[in-house]
Amino acid sequence: MILPKNNRLTPEQLNEVTSIVTEFGCQIQPIIGAIRTIYAIVGDERDELMMNRLEGLTYVDRIDRIQSPFKLMDKRSDLASHRIKLGGITLGENLLIIAGACTIDPKNPNYFYETAHAVKEAGAHVLRGGVWKPRTNPYTFQGDVKSLDILMEASRRTGLPVDSEVMEESHIKLALDAGVHSLQVGARNALNYSLLRAIGRAIAEKDTAVLLKRSIHMGPLNEFISAAEYIAAFGNPNVILCPRGTTPTLDGYRNHPDESITPLLKEKTWAPVVVDPSHSVGKSSYVPAAALAAVAYGADGLCIESHVEPAKGIGDDPKQALTPDVLKKTIVQAKQLWNLKRN
Amino acid sequence: MILPKNNRLTPEQLNEVTSIVTEFGCQIQPIIGAIRTIYAIVGDERDELMMNRLEGLTYVDRIDRIQSPFKLMDKRSDLASHRIKLGGITLGENLLIIAGACTIDPKNPNYFYETAHAVKEAGAHVLRGGVWKPRTNPYTFQGDVKSLDILMEASRRTGLPVDSEVMEESHIKLALDAGVHSLQVGARNALNYSLLRAIGRAIAEKDTAVLLKRSIHMGPLNEFISAAEYIAAFGNPNVILCPRGTTPTLDGYRNHPDESITPLLKEKTWAPVVVDPSHSVGKSSYVPAAALAAVAYGADGLCIESHVEPAKGIGDDPKQALTPDVLKKTIVQAKQLWNLKRN
Amino acid sequence: MILPKNNRLTPEQLNEVTSIVTEFGCQIQPIIGAIRTIYAIVGDERDELMMNRLEGLTYVDRIDRIQSPFKLMDKRSDLASHRIKLGGITLGENLLIIAGACTIDPKNPNYFYETAHAVKEAGAHVLRGGVWKPRTNPYTFQGDVKSLDILMEASRRTGLPVDSEVMEESHIKLALDAGVHSLQVGARNALNYSLLRAIGRAIAEKDTAVLLKRSIHMGPLNEFISAAEYIAAFGNPNVILCPRGTTPTLDGYRNHPDESITPLLKEKTWAPVVVDPSHSVGKSSYVPAAALAAVAYGADGLCIESHVEPAKGIGDDPKQALTPDVLKKTIVQAKQLWNLKRN
Amino acid sequence: MILPKNNRLTPEQLNEVTSIVTEFGCQIQPIIGAIRTIYAIVGDERDELMMNRLEGLTYVDRIDRIQSPFKLMDKRSDLASHRIKLGGITLGENLLIIAGACTIDPKNPNYFYETAHAVKEAGAHVLRGGVWKPRTNPYTFQGDVKSLDILMEASRRTGLPVDSEVMEESHIKLALDAGVHSLQVGARNALNYSLLRAIGRAIAEKDTAVLLKRSIHMGPLNEFISAAEYIAAFGNPNVILCPRGTTPTLDGYRNHPDESITPLLKEKTWAPVVVDPSHSVGKSSYVPAAALAAVAYGADGLCIESHVEPAKGIGDDPKQALTPDVLKKTIVQAKQLWNLKRN
Repeated sequence: MILPKNNRLTPEQLNEVTSIVTEFGCQIQPIIGAIRTIYAIVGDERDELMMNRLEGLTYVDRIDRIQSPFKLMDKRSDLASHRIKLGGITLGENLLIIAGACTIDPKNPNYFYETAHAVKEAGAHVLRGGVWKPRTNPYTFQGDVKSLDILMEASRRTGLPVDSEVMEESHIKLALDAGVHSLQVGARNALNYSLLRAIGRAIAEKDTAVLLKRSIHMGPLNEFISAAEYIAAFGNPNVILCPRGTTPTLDGYRNHPDESITPLLKEKTWAPVVVDPSHSVGKSSYVPAAALAAVAYGADGLCIESHVEPAKGIGDDPKQALTPDVLKKTIVQAKQLWNLKRN
Repeated sequence: MILPKNNRLTPEQLNEVTSIVTEFGCQIQPIIGAIRTIYAIVGDERDELMMNRLEGLTYVDRIDRIQSPFKLMDKRSDLASHRIKLGGITLGENLLIIAGACTIDPKNPNYFYETAHAVKEAGAHVLRGGVWKPRTNPYTFQGDVKSLDILMEASRRTGLPVDSEVMEESHIKLALDAGVHSLQVGARNALNYSLLRAIGRAIAEKDTAVLLKRSIHMGPLNEFISAAEYIAAFGNPNVILCPRGTTPTLDGYRNHPDESITPLLKEKTWAPVVVDPSHSVGKSSYVPAAALAAVAYGADGLCIESHVEPAKGIGDDPKQALTPDVLKKTIVQAKQLWNLKRN
Repeated sequence: MILPKNNRLTPEQLNEVTSIVTEFGCQIQPIIGAIRTIYAIVGDERDELMMNRLEGLTYVDRIDRIQSPFKLMDKRSDLASHRIKLGGITLGENLLIIAGACTIDPKNPNYFYETAHAVKEAGAHVLRGGVWKPRTNPYTFQGDVKSLDILMEASRRTGLPVDSEVMEESHIKLALDAGVHSLQVGARNALNYSLLRAIGRAIAEKDTAVLLKRSIHMGPLNEFISAAEYIAAFGNPNVILCPRGTTPTLDGYRNHPDESITPLLKEKTWAPVVVDPSHSVGKSSYVPAAALAAVAYGADGLCIESHVEPAKGIGDDPKQALTPDVLKKTIVQAKQLWNLKRN
Repeated sequence: MILPKNNRLTPEQLNEVTSIVTEFGCQIQPIIGAIRTIYAIVGDERDELMMNRLEGLTYVDRIDRIQSPFKLMDKRSDLASHRIKLGGITLGENLLIIAGACTIDPKNPNYFYETAHAVKEAGAHVLRGGVWKPRTNPYTFQGDVKSLDILMEASRRTGLPVDSEVMEESHIKLALDAGVHSLQVGARNALNYSLLRAIGRAIAEKDTAVLLKRSIHMGPLNEFISAAEYIAAFGNPNVILCPRGTTPTLDGYRNHPDESITPLLKEKTWAPVVVDPSHSVGKSSYVPAAALAAVAYGADGLCIESHVEPAKGIGDDPKQALTPDVLKKTIVQAKQLWNLKRN
């Protein structure tokens, strides 16, 4: 839909517009209004280059996009009936709980083994554990590949599938070879298209899921779904969207809680939404409330940081991990709310 | 706490700083660190003018405020044990429900009378109804004083106390004389200090409550509580804080849902928090989820728009009002969640 | 332009939509696209109630507004040829400079008299001086009506017209009777429609200008121009738009500098734009750069705080006022840039 | 600086705090105020893990950081006297101009060759040209390694050094082997720490510069400088910071112009700042104003998109590239403003 700056395009302008869209297989249909005439683009308007050219015309005020830019992740695409399974749960049918430590401590593996047993006991379906860690500060511990063994050993001991973040192409193969069940793309890499592409390709043939965190700073909704579209377009349709807070404001949270994006995502895409309340609010005392709010907004699951002794954690755990008893209570209430909403 | 730009203040700079704070009855105490020396302000640091002068010094990097700026609304003030009652509910002890139409239609009063009965039946404790309406567009219906009679008549018919917005000083007297039980300060007037002052004074001697909406654009937490402090400082301590969404983003809501501010407010102030999910999300289909999220975050009450026939409403109702049956279900679930959180 | 959730409206839905728009004198014209059909509203689509009703329909995805909502302030309205004069300057033809103190100190009027002479000498065309002051903190000095005499005396002594903020209806008459040449609406009152209306009415017959500050938190462009439309609609077309920074971010400024909004405003409205760099950046050392940036973006004028001895000021001056020599240099450079852009 | 929730820490709490900081080689020094006691951390407070542990204590209200987290990029570090040279310009001494096309069209190399000559003639010191392109949409042209030859051929023909974006580790070697003079890190990769590390290592021994774009969504200032710290910490100190607009708002720009961050960056870091007005405003008609505003705020250089025939460009050029004559005029005015500010 092209809105001209003036009330209508001159014949020369209409010619130029027509010649651009024709090049991309579209047509122009004017809609004559009482005051202003607008110009519909009939055809597939999703080519960014066509849109760039039209928006570059000095006499065009703005272009309203009518079509969804998502071929695979759109709610009306053929993929929409696809169901993702993880930890024995079919997403959408039951509330999925992912829980575990932010960062595995390679020097003290027992903390992680104990945490693994504790989150299973508390009701988690999937165990999370950080092997490599992106840190704002280059001088802070950045993770250790040895933790991958600890992660898989915890998986064997508990029988829980595991989720872990990969930060670069080389990590993908290591993680898949070790048998990680769900690859996490961290918030800082949500727009790292090279990584998204590599993940899409690497697990095209497997059952592995991808937990795609929302970029800490991702503004518009479409950018988030586009990142998922990348992974799907290159071969893996098992993408789970994970809001985890956006750019911090002056309000006082670590980030700005964004569980409220859930119903908006669900109007546009069929992808399940698993919210991470831990990073969103960034302080353990707020996490149970944020977890319930996510379920209130329709989340299909929760990804919560937990540690048997948070103060001994080496990542964000001292600040934001729940102890197993608080985790358990939170899971129980979250499931009660999930059921309450379904009555 | 004064942080100098360099590692420490020169003797001349220290002299200047000392002479400024002394003028306001404070003292300076240096804290000598390994690398940098910082300078504590000992005394009452709340005078804005003293702070402005210190921040105006070229060699000062920044000032960290240590004290709460709120004398009355602070959680640690003498007022903290004050309890507000409205609609038979003591706030904090039970979930307060305010419900009703955005704007009373003076030509069709029956819609409002029917809505009043319906919201009572659905479980509301207080009836809301708009008499005067702030509108972005100067050519849209701005309310009518005749609706005040309809509002009070509905109160008599149902026995429900009523809440209604006042936009200027002249409205306050009209509303109080008519017997309105709770005055609402709309989001657009949350920084209109002349109005806040007039409300504080007008109801100093009465039991009337004030529902203070958060400005649609209010960023920092402190600004919201400061607006409440105005009302209390001029005489009325019955201030209820009402988050209702902040500046819209590209996400797609009318505003940006802000129920998550609730626990942060409760750490700073004793004031009860009643969330308005209707304006926050701006579309009736999202309101039930947002209402539950508010309770998840610890809200003491909800203020929800409802109308027996939303499409016939003359304000925001066609878009955001719940029908009485959806309202009823929302109230039931909200109360269930409120109880669930208390177990 | 109505975009349905599904590919096209059912006959029943089209009937309902048609009956709503017909009630407001409009018609529906479907535009049949390859994949999706959209529905143009032919007629005057500016009635908010019609739009609310359409947006309230569950089968409507979104509505794209085509028409400008501004009858008077729109760039294409009949008022567009109106020129505003202030301080001997026709806005748009020369760079207008407004300068002076944030708050007049009623106990030490000489500071203001000296400042008035100094800003005139530095090249200012209009003298600003605060009589009443909105303060976030209710316990801080809020201004004094006695300062109105000092303001007018400074005007007589220097021959400069004066600009001053009014905060409530009672101030308007006092200011106009005293002879204030330009009324300022502060950022906190930019959405106080009762005040905007009263100002529009009060000066309908006079030559007085209105300097309308952008709300500290005003997000969308349209809301700012709508506030101007209020003043014009009730009688006064001499509205000058004054960006002065929006909600503070974590970047470190008092507010978020918003001079970049200038070219966007000028695409929608004919109103002149005078930027206030002092409040925007909030620290005198940044003000000269911000003033030049405003001229770079096409501002028609600048409103700058200045004080002969900033540290003795009683408002924001200690932090943000320029000394007269820095003001002078800033004005000289701003005019050079203004000319440079015109070559 | 630790601020407790209550007026002071209990002896047990003080013990716990002391034992945490001692573990990291620091000490606690209480500062007894009139109302509240605060606790200074004496020693190197930069360890994130220590901070996480302290922030995780339930009785801690907040922690104010006193020290800069930047060892190398801080304005007071030993590196602060380092000067970066590019295109014959020593940054800080003269205004650096980088100009060229967004994306090189491998099928029509002549457009790029002609653009290269034209930007040189217009006054640019460095030629930019995109070989690989991050695109939000996975189905859009993502660049082609063949364009690397075209880029270097243009460099040879004009004698201009070249700047080009690298998106993954494999690109770094290709670009350095070809002889690219300045590697660009795009906004989407500004938090891709694996890439930043690889760049730091790869060019530790070379003279190559890095143009680090600010993430489209980067909120706090510190995050931007931290990304630069990564590159420097792993070996390359030639980092240039490039603001290019942040998360789009409803105002109407492609992004939110952020040239105003320049003076804030310069207070914290010695790194030069080169602003990209093209991506910031996203439309060629606004670019000249935004370029001047960047110089007004103290930018050391500009990075501007230009194309001999914007409508034929295959990236963002149709929308935002300047034609050579507009580029030339912009450069002339930018240099005039640069000189004017130095008088």
